[in-house]
Amino acid sequence: MAGSTFGTIFKISTWGESHGKALGVVIDGCPAGLKLCEEDIQPYLDRRKPGQTVISTPRKESDQVEILSGVFKGYTTGTPISLLVFNTSQKSSDYSEIASYYRPGHADYTFDAKYGFRDYTGGGRSSGRETIGRVAAGAVAVKILKEMGITVTAYTKSIGPVSIDMTRFDKNAIYRTPTCMPDENADQAAMAYLKECMEKKDSSGGTVECIASGLPAGIGDPVFEKLDANLAKAIMSIGAVKAVEMGDGVLVSQSVGSQNNDAFRCTNGIVSKKTNHAGGILGGISDGSQILLRAHIKPTPSIFSVQETVNQKGDNIEIAIKGRHDPVIVPRAVVVVEAMTALTILDACMLNMTARLDYLKDFYN
Amino acid sequence: MAGSTFGTIFKISTWGESHGKALGVVIDGCPAGLKLCEEDIQPYLDRRKPGQTVISTPRKESDQVEILSGVFKGYTTGTPISLLVFNTSQKSSDYSEIASYYRPGHADYTFDAKYGFRDYTGGGRSSGRETIGRVAAGAVAVKILKEMGITVTAYTKSIGPVSIDMTRFDKNAIYRTPTCMPDENADQAAMAYLKECMEKKDSSGGTVECIASGLPAGIGDPVFEKLDANLAKAIMSIGAVKAVEMGDGVLVSQSVGSQNNDAFRCTNGIVSKKTNHAGGILGGISDGSQILLRAHIKPTPSIFSVQETVNQKGDNIEIAIKGRHDPVIVPRAVVVVEAMTALTILDACMLNMTARLDYLKDFYN
Amino acid sequence: MAGSTFGTIFKISTWGESHGKALGVVIDGCPAGLKLCEEDIQPYLDRRKPGQTVISTPRKESDQVEILSGVFKGYTTGTPISLLVFNTSQKSSDYSEIASYYRPGHADYTFDAKYGFRDYTGGGRSSGRETIGRVAAGAVAVKILKEMGITVTAYTKSIGPVSIDMTRFDKNAIYRTPTCMPDENADQAAMAYLKECMEKKDSSGGTVECIASGLPAGIGDPVFEKLDANLAKAIMSIGAVKAVEMGDGVLVSQSVGSQNNDAFRCTNGIVSKKTNHAGGILGGISDGSQILLRAHIKPTPSIFSVQETVNQKGDNIEIAIKGRHDPVIVPRAVVVVEAMTALTILDACMLNMTARLDYLKDFYN
Amino acid sequence: MAGSTFGTIFKISTWGESHGKALGVVIDGCPAGLKLCEEDIQPYLDRRKPGQTVISTPRKESDQVEILSGVFKGYTTGTPISLLVFNTSQKSSDYSEIASYYRPGHADYTFDAKYGFRDYTGGGRSSGRETIGRVAAGAVAVKILKEMGITVTAYTKSIGPVSIDMTRFDKNAIYRTPTCMPDENADQAAMAYLKECMEKKDSSGGTVECIASGLPAGIGDPVFEKLDANLAKAIMSIGAVKAVEMGDGVLVSQSVGSQNNDAFRCTNGIVSKKTNHAGGILGGISDGSQILLRAHIKPTPSIFSVQETVNQKGDNIEIAIKGRHDPVIVPRAVVVVEAMTALTILDACMLNMTARLDYLKDFYN
Repeated sequence: MAGSTFGTIFKISTWGESHGKALGVVIDGCPAGLKLCEEDIQPYLDRRKPGQTVISTPRKESDQVEILSGVFKGYTTGTPISLLVFNTSQKSSDYSEIASYYRPGHADYTFDAKYGFRDYTGGGRSSGRETIGRVAAGAVAVKILKEMGITVTAYTKSIGPVSIDMTRFDKNAIYRTPTCMPDENADQAAMAYLKECMEKKDSSGGTVECIASGLPAGIGDPVFEKLDANLAKAIMSIGAVKAVEMGDGVLVSQSVGSQNNDAFRCTNGIVSKKTNHAGGILGGISDGSQILLRAHIKPTPSIFSVQETVNQKGDNIEIAIKGRHDPVIVPRAVVVVEAMTALTILDACMLNMTARLDYLKDFYN
Repeated sequence: MAGSTFGTIFKISTWGESHGKALGVVIDGCPAGLKLCEEDIQPYLDRRKPGQTVISTPRKESDQVEILSGVFKGYTTGTPISLLVFNTSQKSSDYSEIASYYRPGHADYTFDAKYGFRDYTGGGRSSGRETIGRVAAGAVAVKILKEMGITVTAYTKSIGPVSIDMTRFDKNAIYRTPTCMPDENADQAAMAYLKECMEKKDSSGGTVECIASGLPAGIGDPVFEKLDANLAKAIMSIGAVKAVEMGDGVLVSQSVGSQNNDAFRCTNGIVSKKTNHAGGILGGISDGSQILLRAHIKPTPSIFSVQETVNQKGDNIEIAIKGRHDPVIVPRAVVVVEAMTALTILDACMLNMTARLDYLKDFYN
Repeated sequence: MAGSTFGTIFKISTWGESHGKALGVVIDGCPAGLKLCEEDIQPYLDRRKPGQTVISTPRKESDQVEILSGVFKGYTTGTPISLLVFNTSQKSSDYSEIASYYRPGHADYTFDAKYGFRDYTGGGRSSGRETIGRVAAGAVAVKILKEMGITVTAYTKSIGPVSIDMTRFDKNAIYRTPTCMPDENADQAAMAYLKECMEKKDSSGGTVECIASGLPAGIGDPVFEKLDANLAKAIMSIGAVKAVEMGDGVLVSQSVGSQNNDAFRCTNGIVSKKTNHAGGILGGISDGSQILLRAHIKPTPSIFSVQETVNQKGDNIEIAIKGRHDPVIVPRAVVVVEAMTALTILDACMLNMTARLDYLKDFYN
Repeated sequence: MAGSTFGTIFKISTWGESHGKALGVVIDGCPAGLKLCEEDIQPYLDRRKPGQTVISTPRKESDQVEILSGVFKGYTTGTPISLLVFNTSQKSSDYSEIASYYRPGHADYTFDAKYGFRDYTGGGRSSGRETIGRVAAGAVAVKILKEMGITVTAYTKSIGPVSIDMTRFDKNAIYRTPTCMPDENADQAAMAYLKECMEKKDSSGGTVECIASGLPAGIGDPVFEKLDANLAKAIMSIGAVKAVEMGDGVLVSQSVGSQNNDAFRCTNGIVSKKTNHAGGILGGISDGSQILLRAHIKPTPSIFSVQETVNQKGDNIEIAIKGRHDPVIVPRAVVVVEAMTALTILDACMLNMTARLDYLKDFYN
């Protein structure tokens, strides 16, 4: 079924395989009047690009985005925006072996089970390159949110056993460190840990945290379209994510009400909360505090040590994956988490504009 | 916006407030030919009913379900099934106080922020009674899945610091213990802990775990409609859930690839996995192993100790919530998690039936 | 699949069979703050009620609507509104014959082909009573549109060979004449024609026209979500409608551009059109003129003369339908056309509120 | 809002402007295993190409389609298929005048009203070139339907006063005549009429008819997702269509039941109908007869005679449109009607595969 479409009003359809001709996204439902050019989007794609540090694959992917439609004289027209990135450096020559067996932790087996066969070159549609469309669309969402006073910031929270120290939070470090950690000390410790992993032909998991600020109270819809429910879907849809937390997340199950409840207070007529265990969402609706979420990302499944698996013929075999693979997915997932959070929040904000009869009356009278 | 509708093919729309005339659900897209009567649904509603143990509110809610449409001579007809439960014991007399302020941890403030006012009687739409529609629809989904060889089982995994011991797993205990734990020892320890909480006028969080067995490989769609993404949304949409884990969940972020990867093996032509860290899903598609997920549920926000908050006039006040409230939400959420898991899996199974051209050719030729 | 759900933001799910316990609708996405009670809805249901004139079946259906949720202290809360009508006078005793064969012009055969069996009592889900849910929801949409300055009026345009004379248009006559024609002369001629039909044991087709006024320019979305495309779907989804026209409709195919083009003009800064061949829609978007559409409705398929058909065993047989049936569907379809038009326009108006970045900025800043 | 997305399972998103860099479509939900290459799609695009006869604009548009994703080693993989056509011959130099005023019969005014401005070059998104995406996706749908034994054929039924004679129906003539009429005599008469129109600086309307054969009984869903309702939306969404008829269409309103009802008969165990006034659909569900629909298309709004209109400043002005424009839209719309019909039917067939519990049991057991 149509699995590559996301959003109700700000709706995106991504497409493309790792080693196909191109990858891209169609944004259907972008409001008219947004100043938009390739330079607004390219920096986000650059943040997910590999080949930049010792812990990311040295494949060269220029990943230059082109706007093919929906923008006229520098402004969005309200019609679909087609964004495209041509694949330039992919070579499919050495995939004959991978074609024959199922890599543990990858989607090889499940794609075969579902579709009867698969595009095995570079992971096909289940490659991390699939996120190019998400990130490109996310950059547009981020730009719109900024015009509404809303910012979204994601960063690496932990890699393996190494976590950032929030008291040392340095936003600029996110864009400077190879780990995308906002804490240079933690970055160095994490890099040392990753080096160890690589020496052991192993890989590491980690967490990405994301904060959205400036969101007014009232965004999100009760019951199934709760803001946190849609964020959970958005984040869990990113390959390798195995858990999503809102606010205190898993800690709430060991907490007590007197501690977990956030007290309201009112200062100069403005309601806020003394604490934010809830992560900015109550009953599925934003409460005016920061939205806070975390994604737990599994270790890169492509490791160089010997692994047991089966091939398509049904033989039990041993394999050792070759090529170059990042020892950790987390740093490149940071911008993807940011993009998915932005897309989800923007769509919820748009849906909220019809929540009251007065809004309709104000608009139409 | 329309937040009370869930599913693409097996689509449900729930409705109803805690203290309204009735609550219910319309199931649109149920296949024709399913034997169905009220007795198939009532046991699921009974499992979420309060008033049954010391840890659940003694309010009497008979919650008798009626099938109003979509069933003819005992079988579903393929047209919408309307299920309804009349509210019988609600009294709205003593809500004037609650109407005036915002209870910490509740959706009072966010509903006001969104809609301009709220139904404050018993929590209105944000009450736990909202789940009646989910559970009734879930019972139908469970029955269909059973015909397809798929079973879904949820249970309480932990309450506060007390976790079940999986080696003592006793399925029948789920339906017998007040905590819905499949381990009577843990149940007793948890009950003792809850008694403590109640004495301290406090409440406890906990976790629900859910297993789906019999699901073939190939269910779920890549990218945004991943099976785990839709499960995450389904589970996070349940009030009070603050984190969702698939398989090893949050542990993956501290794991390494050599440990987290599940090795494939083939025995008598059947592919399986040696371990199931992935929780039965790879690349968003079921791999034939058990689906395993966990929901982290916050402590009941209604506690009897004094709390700080604000009222609608903007005064900072202190409140002490009255009435009777469960010291833990978890046991009553178990059947809700089961229902949402069943609804999500059934919809994914239905969507999967068009994944290959051969399926269409077999069906239509 | 889920065929009983309509709309994107103002979303309705109808349910119920002709002879089931009840029929109803859930409105999910109604804005908060609308004053609403049963008396707002009942008059619309009364307009579709049978048993009122010689040309409508004398079955007594009280069709009293109940609001079960979504309204608190007289105002909508933004949560789902469940509307229900209990069936009171249905008797299923004499359907054994109908159960065995396929009535020409009815959905008996196609329901069997699709679902394997059918609820044959009173037509089940394919009965005209299915429209109760549409009309009840439509009444709510009409009330909201009125607050936005938009009115929707449908009426019988023709019955068999008898058409109304637009120069004699009398709006009040719509609600007074048995044919719902806004022209008493035409009404009398149509009644004479219908009497003839009844004497011949035959039935008549006719047309319903609908006008929406007050809709500003800019409503509707290009390409697939054109306002006229959604209106066409909405109207064609009404049982017995076989053609839908916008503006001049079928006449355009024999027209020429110099005649069919509507000239724009500007008076006191207000743009309007000299003519309205287009029916108020250009490029799928409202142009500020009246929306004008027509539905062509087939003759009642239940006629008393002898007809050839087959039974479920595959025998070629002759049947003569018994009972009492309206010789024309049109008058009772008028309020249904009005309802579907209102639902479609309201949803389009809500979707339009995010068409420009400035709308978002105005709303959120 | 997202207006460029169509379909529930076989979902397409079209994009692109007349004079932008490219146009295209993403097909999300195409089953895996279909043999597909550019040569399957190109002939459909060639059928809508201009510059081929005296009655179509001599602009050269090569309109070469490229498959960018979703196909691996010649077969669809089940992942999104991105189809793209680069614009090669568009020149935007001479649109300054058009930019300043509203052409009668065009969407200039309504786009400005909706979005605040518009891409005025070549009509932007409201150009007929928008249909490239529909036709490319339709070609894929047609190919799948063929594998299921279903064919879709559209042709010009009439141009102005000239109608085809069904007794002279010659299918090959559709692809040979400049009018796409399946009757060479009518084609010649229509061409003579169009020549007259051109001499008068005028344009002509006409009708397209479409037949789908091989569709089994049971396709389409009751109530809102009726097959004819979705066909009506699909066809009315094509620019310039102002009326849609199913079967006898507008004639039913002047017919009587004894004539309009199609008698069932059974021959060798196979149920069929003696006549097909219904156009193959009863109660919104296919009845096994041919699906028959008609679209009424307005005259080309771009005519060379002088017209009254207003400019953006609000002056009442006279204009005479320049350039080259087809005197009739109909022949180029034929393949678009075919495409939209195929897309709608395929989606309905896919949705039908879950209509019965037995289908699920057969598939999963």
